Amino acid sequence: MTTTTSMMRAEIAEQPEALRRTFAELLPLRREIEDLGRRTRQVLFIARGSSDNAAVYGGYLLQVHAGRMATLGSPSVATVYGAKTDLSDVLAVAISQSGKTEEIVETMRWAAGCGARTVAITNGADSPLATEADVALVTQAGNELAVPATKTYNTQLAALAVLALGLGADLDAGELELAPQGIEETLAAPADVLEEIAERMASVRGTVVSGRGLATSTALEAALKLKEACYLHAMGMSYADLLHGPIAVLDSRTPTLLMASPTGPTLRGAVSLAEQARSAGSPVFGFGGGAALASASDLSVPVPDVPEWICPMNLIVPAQLLTERLARRLGHDPDVPRGLNKVTQTT
Amino acid sequence: MTTTTSMMRAEIAEQPEALRRTFAELLPLRREIEDLGRRTRQVLFIARGSSDNAAVYGGYLLQVHAGRMATLGSPSVATVYGAKTDLSDVLAVAISQSGKTEEIVETMRWAAGCGARTVAITNGADSPLATEADVALVTQAGNELAVPATKTYNTQLAALAVLALGLGADLDAGELELAPQGIEETLAAPADVLEEIAERMASVRGTVVSGRGLATSTALEAALKLKEACYLHAMGMSYADLLHGPIAVLDSRTPTLLMASPTGPTLRGAVSLAEQARSAGSPVFGFGGGAALASASDLSVPVPDVPEWICPMNLIVPAQLLTERLARRLGHDPDVPRGLNKVTQTT
Repeated sequence: MTTTTSMMRAEIAEQPEALRRTFAELLPLRREIEDLGRRTRQVLFIARGSSDNAAVYGGYLLQVHAGRMATLGSPSVATVYGAKTDLSDVLAVAISQSGKTEEIVETMRWAAGCGARTVAITNGADSPLATEADVALVTQAGNELAVPATKTYNTQLAALAVLALGLGADLDAGELELAPQGIEETLAAPADVLEEIAERMASVRGTVVSGRGLATSTALEAALKLKEACYLHAMGMSYADLLHGPIAVLDSRTPTLLMASPTGPTLRGAVSLAEQARSAGSPVFGFGGGAALASASDLSVPVPDVPEWICPMNLIVPAQLLTERLARRLGHDPDVPRGLNKVTQTT
Repeated sequence: MTTTTSMMRAEIAEQPEALRRTFAELLPLRREIEDLGRRTRQVLFIARGSSDNAAVYGGYLLQVHAGRMATLGSPSVATVYGAKTDLSDVLAVAISQSGKTEEIVETMRWAAGCGARTVAITNGADSPLATEADVALVTQAGNELAVPATKTYNTQLAALAVLALGLGADLDAGELELAPQGIEETLAAPADVLEEIAERMASVRGTVVSGRGLATSTALEAALKLKEACYLHAMGMSYADLLHGPIAVLDSRTPTLLMASPTGPTLRGAVSLAEQARSAGSPVFGFGGGAALASASDLSVPVPDVPEWICPMNLIVPAQLLTERLARRLGHDPDVPRGLNKVTQTT
């Protein structure tokens, strides 16, 4: 059993306040976002790592709820190839915790040079990303010291939710307060199931982490956490992609972690995937998904029943807690994974 | 040692002729593509599995060489959420081997309903995808019987190369013939190194497969092949993403497969990643990348020195050969992986 704690665990617990501060700071900027929205049509995200997973959430939110084509860009198009791409009509949204990752700063500059308007989402108020963007959405996570991003990731989701509202999403801003409330519930709940999942994950060969639609972001981010802090071969993917080949890797030593909102149109598919994975001999651990996913899973972790668009801010929390627990269980320091630094520079 | 052979191996060998037939069939359609190009600005790919990996190649090709924003769509936006998205100015390119995967057909119909023009890239001449698109680029791979896509994947790359030319890419169509020639060279070369890599891969914990830029598609497709036919925990990703966390999983039982063109601006980064991976204790197997990558790798597989945009059609071939060999070495039938069918339907 694990007894010590970590900075990562402390930062996970700071998320409710970090989200509240971020909403308070950013909601007043909706008019400026609206203005950028009138001058553009498509959205292009520029991000890497956890920020890229946050962008996946933003992409679904804008496409499903704001009627805009919104997709992930490839920074190397700018930084390696120096392409000249027509980005008039495009809103480029650059996301970086530090706001200092050169690849992201350089790609945002390139986008502006190609005719795009720019938004920065960063926790670095004085960073180049924040100072150079047309509109800066500065998240209020406070300093993050553990290398695996937790509160900075979740406040990026918060900023993306505000961005979607500013761009005309058919969503109720009043529901945002359910996000920090839901995390508080999760943090206060008994951790027995997470402890049991961590115990069972300690001897696996690897794992598949899957979700769909808005929860795809959570699956990708959970897989990244498990890779970076637990050195686990965690393969994150949408469950539709999983069916196109990768499902062959499932076996008794390759559990499936499924992330699903308790409500919304993707739930049915998550339940059906749980059944397929179990019939392939893979233990299934369900995160969220309500009673339907729980009854199709070997072990399940509840999350509060909030609207689907709010859920990713809640759903990632038990995955963060599992990662922190499992890392310590395996004898790793979750705060300082091997081979990683807090600010990543790519050449 | 493996002695029997497979349909997959036979289909790998058919690629030079499949590419030649595809170029002959599709190059005359450039004028029709040009016409669609004049009526649109951005490109949105609609695909899953191997076809999605082909789309990654198409995305880089169009962004780097044709000055167009080009990205991957999320079919669930259409099929699960039924979103109303503004796709006027958008060319939707749907890619599916069979042309019958309902999710892809339905998403192409949705895109047309949202104002997009449509192109189908499919091996199914009479499929719904081919008959309903504004322009159908029907690949000439012939029947593919093994479940893991090989010649249909490569002819999708061929179709995307023609698409890029039609959309004004600054590339020389005369270089296309280097693709089948290069594959013939690879097929005729001795297979000792592939045999040795297969031997060493037979007892690994999992593997990371990485590439960048135009070769990202090859890394993703190689990882998918190894997952579906060898049940290997193969994590495919761009090497920039690898540095943002996942690099922590590398160790002596997690080799790194690096895919790189022998020329072009991404080679320097591939060599530097090879050095980082080896210093993390991971054996590095280089595919392509010329002398520079070979000298930074534990074992290396040469590919012909063709222009960077042609290379992905060559670079995937040794990865296909490795997959087929390793599957048989592990006692699996590469033609019929567990849990998979040739046409995947997603609900």
